[in-house]
Amino acid sequence: VIAEAGLEFVVDATGCDPARLRDETLLRALLGRAIDELELRPVAAPLVHVFPGEGGVTAMVLLAESHLALHTFPELGLATFNLYCCRPRPAWAWESRLAEALGAEVVRVRILERGAARSETP
Amino acid sequence: VIAEAGLEFVVDATGCDPARLRDETLLRALLGRAIDELELRPVAAPLVHVFPGEGGVTAMVLLAESHLALHTFPELGLATFNLYCCRPRPAWAWESRLAEALGAEVVRVRILERGAARSETP
Repeated sequence: VIAEAGLEFVVDATGCDPARLRDETLLRALLGRAIDELELRPVAAPLVHVFPGEGGVTAMVLLAESHLALHTFPELGLATFNLYCCRPRPAWAWESRLAEALGAEVVRVRILERGAARSETP
Repeated sequence: VIAEAGLEFVVDATGCDPARLRDETLLRALLGRAIDELELRPVAAPLVHVFPGEGGVTAMVLLAESHLALHTFPELGLATFNLYCCRPRPAWAWESRLAEALGAEVVRVRILERGAARSETP
C-alpha cells in the first residue's frame, strides 16, 4: 500500500560502536551510500552538526523525495534514521548496511504511511 | 512512557489551504512559533527549499533536541511534520495551531518512541 504522500522509514539501530557514531566522515559516507543506492536526489548540501565532547552527530538532507535525517547517541550505542520518500522507492538493506558501517547489532525498521488516514484494505 | 532516545511526533494535516502551503514566510513563522512555544533550541538556521511552480515547501531545523521537518503538498492540501525530541517536552496544540495557520481540517498526530524496542509495560 502506497499512501498518497508516500512512506516514511523510521529506523533505530542499537549496539553500534560509539566511536563510529562520532565519526562525521564515516556518517557522511553512510548517508551518501543510502542516497546513491536508493537513487535519491538531494536539493541542498547536507546539514551536519557535531555535538561537542562525547556527543553525537545530527545530519539532515533535503531531498526532492522529502528528507533523510540521522541522529547518533554514542552514549547509548544508538543511531536513529528517518527516510521520508514521497515517491515509491525500493527498500534499502538497512540491517546489513548499518551492521557493516556502524557495527549495529539490532536494527528496527518501522514503516509509516504519510498523508490522510485511510483504510488498510484496498 | 519516555523511550531512552525520546519521542517523535508524526503529524499529517489535511484540508489545508493550498496557497498557504506555498507561502514560505507563513511557514517559517509557523515553525518559529512551534520552536518558541516548545522551547526548542535550533543549532543552525532553518534549511528551506521552495519547489518551483505549483510545488510546495520543504523545511528542516536541526535542534539540540533532534529535529523538526515540514513538507507541504499544495496539490493534496497536505502538510506533514516530524518533530523528534530526544528530551521530554510538553505536547503542542497541533490541531488548533495548524487550523489557524494553514486552515487544516483534519490533523492526525502519531507518537513514536525512538530507541531500542521494549515492553510497553513499566
